[in-house]
Amino acid sequence: MDKYKVRFVALGGIVGVTKNMYVYEIYENEVLKDILIIDCGIGFPHEKELGVDFVIPDITYLKDKIDKIRAVVLTHGHEDHISALPFHYLELGKPPVYTSKLTAAFIENKFKEFNQPVNVTEVKYGEVYQFGDFKLNFLPVTHSIPDTMHVVIKTPVGNLYHGTDFKMDLTPPFGPPPDFYGITKAGNEGILCLFSDSLGSEREGLTLSEAIVGQVFEDEMRKTKGKFIMTTFSSNISRIRQCVDAAIKFNRKIVFLGRSMRENTRLSAEIGYLPIPNALTAKEEDVRRLPPNKVCLIVAGSQGQYESALSKLANNKNKNVKIKPGDKVIFSSDPIPGNENEVYNVIEELSLQGAEVIYSDIHDELHASGHGNQDDLKFLIRFTKPRYFIPIGGTLRHQLQYQKLVGELGYPKENVFTLEIGETVWFTRNNAYKGDELETKTIYVDAYGVGDVGNMVLRDRKTLSSEGIVVALIMVDSNGRLLARPNIVSRGFVFEKAEEELFEKAARLVEKVLKPRKEHIIDLGIIKKDVEGYLEKFFYQEKGRKPLIVVDVIQI
Amino acid sequence: MDKYKVRFVALGGIVGVTKNMYVYEIYENEVLKDILIIDCGIGFPHEKELGVDFVIPDITYLKDKIDKIRAVVLTHGHEDHISALPFHYLELGKPPVYTSKLTAAFIENKFKEFNQPVNVTEVKYGEVYQFGDFKLNFLPVTHSIPDTMHVVIKTPVGNLYHGTDFKMDLTPPFGPPPDFYGITKAGNEGILCLFSDSLGSEREGLTLSEAIVGQVFEDEMRKTKGKFIMTTFSSNISRIRQCVDAAIKFNRKIVFLGRSMRENTRLSAEIGYLPIPNALTAKEEDVRRLPPNKVCLIVAGSQGQYESALSKLANNKNKNVKIKPGDKVIFSSDPIPGNENEVYNVIEELSLQGAEVIYSDIHDELHASGHGNQDDLKFLIRFTKPRYFIPIGGTLRHQLQYQKLVGELGYPKENVFTLEIGETVWFTRNNAYKGDELETKTIYVDAYGVGDVGNMVLRDRKTLSSEGIVVALIMVDSNGRLLARPNIVSRGFVFEKAEEELFEKAARLVEKVLKPRKEHIIDLGIIKKDVEGYLEKFFYQEKGRKPLIVVDVIQI
Repeated sequence: MDKYKVRFVALGGIVGVTKNMYVYEIYENEVLKDILIIDCGIGFPHEKELGVDFVIPDITYLKDKIDKIRAVVLTHGHEDHISALPFHYLELGKPPVYTSKLTAAFIENKFKEFNQPVNVTEVKYGEVYQFGDFKLNFLPVTHSIPDTMHVVIKTPVGNLYHGTDFKMDLTPPFGPPPDFYGITKAGNEGILCLFSDSLGSEREGLTLSEAIVGQVFEDEMRKTKGKFIMTTFSSNISRIRQCVDAAIKFNRKIVFLGRSMRENTRLSAEIGYLPIPNALTAKEEDVRRLPPNKVCLIVAGSQGQYESALSKLANNKNKNVKIKPGDKVIFSSDPIPGNENEVYNVIEELSLQGAEVIYSDIHDELHASGHGNQDDLKFLIRFTKPRYFIPIGGTLRHQLQYQKLVGELGYPKENVFTLEIGETVWFTRNNAYKGDELETKTIYVDAYGVGDVGNMVLRDRKTLSSEGIVVALIMVDSNGRLLARPNIVSRGFVFEKAEEELFEKAARLVEKVLKPRKEHIIDLGIIKKDVEGYLEKFFYQEKGRKPLIVVDVIQI
Repeated sequence: MDKYKVRFVALGGIVGVTKNMYVYEIYENEVLKDILIIDCGIGFPHEKELGVDFVIPDITYLKDKIDKIRAVVLTHGHEDHISALPFHYLELGKPPVYTSKLTAAFIENKFKEFNQPVNVTEVKYGEVYQFGDFKLNFLPVTHSIPDTMHVVIKTPVGNLYHGTDFKMDLTPPFGPPPDFYGITKAGNEGILCLFSDSLGSEREGLTLSEAIVGQVFEDEMRKTKGKFIMTTFSSNISRIRQCVDAAIKFNRKIVFLGRSMRENTRLSAEIGYLPIPNALTAKEEDVRRLPPNKVCLIVAGSQGQYESALSKLANNKNKNVKIKPGDKVIFSSDPIPGNENEVYNVIEELSLQGAEVIYSDIHDELHASGHGNQDDLKFLIRFTKPRYFIPIGGTLRHQLQYQKLVGELGYPKENVFTLEIGETVWFTRNNAYKGDELETKTIYVDAYGVGDVGNMVLRDRKTLSSEGIVVALIMVDSNGRLLARPNIVSRGFVFEKAEEELFEKAARLVEKVLKPRKEHIIDLGIIKKDVEGYLEKFFYQEKGRKPLIVVDVIQI
């Protein structure tokens, strides 16, 4: 029998792509000793019709093991890698969080919104971090957000390489290229298993460098006689920085529109990642009086989200910024599958207002994916020379394509494990095999109203800071029947300890609301909406305040 | 004053691309201490009208310094990197030669043709070789011939990285991928100057893997009802091996046509690089009786060379192998600029004979360049992180494009030295600057007749082994006037020491032949042809034998 074993569990990040959360466990003499968690992100579900904003990983499995959790590592600052942590942090026993500079700024800000303290350490590259029997070192890589890191995880059975979202960007506009020496050195020391981003496994060649897009911004800005308007994901700080650099070159004042955009750029500026000369910063109101050819707007809402800053521009609902002929709008992002209609609607509306709109269908180099294509993925394999492979960050389709790639490099296909959420893989010194599957549920989080999907937390920051939040956790069976007393907690709303009765009353109210529906009601969206409505009314009556109400329904 | 300095001299390999020969020198207190030579290849001149077969580097500069030459390193087995060595070996003082396995087999065979002994050591990867104050280690990389190596040259002023012809092939059909760890490790230890292949610097993206071509061979062979005929460079052992593998799969007997093809494949088979089952080896004569769909011919002459094996097939001059409808001819090579007419002539003739001919204009994946495109070159730069750059292996156009690439990666362009042959660069611990230019001449080598350009030596092996060789060295001024007594040497022809008078007589004959032309005759081709004719007649009269006559004319 092996003295040491290591087990890997994906609590997210596969099948549905987003909602990344990975658990690594060390067992000594068959007894669980140490747990390492990598990432804890939200997911974007397909079930839009349910009115669901996002999903979060199910951590039920970890609840009786929190004394073994040594650390949470966050690989980069994207929502689908960090934004579920505030929801789970207390239940995970407030583990120490290790991450890079920009990610630290983002996650600390998210915790601030929740009025929760968090213990975040900014890691240093080149140093070794010991968490129980895990020894980690961090390697800077390139992605569509600065400060993305890969993680080498040394365990008693061998070294694992956690290759989160990346591309091999040889000309990153900001920050260093990938740490090729560190990566190949890890490979030279021997990698038992490579966990690799697989989302780009269907696309040939190398992914375009972010630098390509910067050139396009310059070229297009030069030709634009009116306002220059660029939209992208608000977390894509490199992209935003390139647009800012072009604006500086052409002496255009820079205005950020949209809460997520303003917040992320503010955080990035604070840590020195987005330097903008004072003379070129401007506010929304300033746009009314500035000559159009002296304005560069960087706007949230590239996915055509309802009520987003861009959507408001398109629908002539922004009182300070009006689209005029001569203006140019650049979509520096591709529509996420499922969002096409919303995006094309916004494009049409903008065009009707007189803007020239440039988007990926008519221009190739407006957007570079953050995920490595086939050649990027092959390079990582050749660098790390692992024995086993687990594709992460992709659906089954991407995993199978990744398996094919691995085969093309001469490895046996059976050394690639394709996993579903909850599936486990055991590692011993000489072997790897699938273990039992853990049961996991889908946890839907439904925000107060529908809007800027995934950026709910930022959008509601204002409500949170003035009114607080109430979260109701509801467990129902497949028929929508309540399985237990609803659990209601709050933050920043009232002093909970003194208000036990209030929450007891609220829980009874929820039970009453759900009772008549004991059969045939399985529309979670309706359950959520109803419970929200009742709770909102209830707390307003009781306390005269309107906290943000979040209803989580777990269906078992 | 710096105690140590290092000087780099390109005696070839730039401007005209081929004829690679690079000299590295260590100076201690301004006194030359150690010389290292990398590569010594032949070149393919544009002056075809002169009847010139090839050119070789001018080593005049080294002649009074041969006691400082510590070693010759050959990076890979291509003609333009190794084939001039037998011409210069004695004059260089018979230095020890270090190279990889396949290259060792090739160069030893060339010396055998010259009836010369040579001291070749096969290097081991991972070991350090000390030559004077040079410390070298060798790194396996990928190119269009197996066993290509890059060289890390440690000197008292810093480490230099000699990045000869390469591409980053992630799926080489034979041999390992590039030693990414070794390369990045060298980068991590600090590289003062990167000497990089630059021939592919105009092409975007990554170069195609050799593996792509193997798939094409299989697909095309499956569809071919008649004979399958593949032509490529006879040194491209990986390519040939892929065709052999496809033939094995489809149970076709393999026949090699052309001297260079037979010779290179024999040498490769001897060292285990080209395993062919006995049951599938066949000879030219066997083709007459074999069913066409059981034959795979691998044929020299992909550049349409006159009198090459392929050209003979096209012109129906091979008595054993006749082109028939149903046959397929695959050109797995691109025409070298200047050879287009010859190649298209052969394609037309083959088509007229009834073959289906597939070549790069009508199929993209028939040929993968051995040279890295822009992304391959950028990877090497990111891996080695050098301070200075010297593009080699390319013309000025490629060097300038390489300089642009380096600039795109954020380096100052003045850190890139673009050189002409004979130009020198000095390195100190903290600096690099251009030095004086050495005078070099073009040395034309004119073989006995015109033929399979660049493969003359192999083609004439038979003559050499039975008749020997006579080499006449003639120095003329720019008007074609003889500047000194012609120098005539021989090998494998007569016992020279006993025949002083014979060679004295031959020298006087050459003087007589050239005398009437003391003015206005600057056509070196005519001089060569005439001298050859007279010497051939002379030696036949005197000795009744027809040695290979080689006339070198150095024009000063």
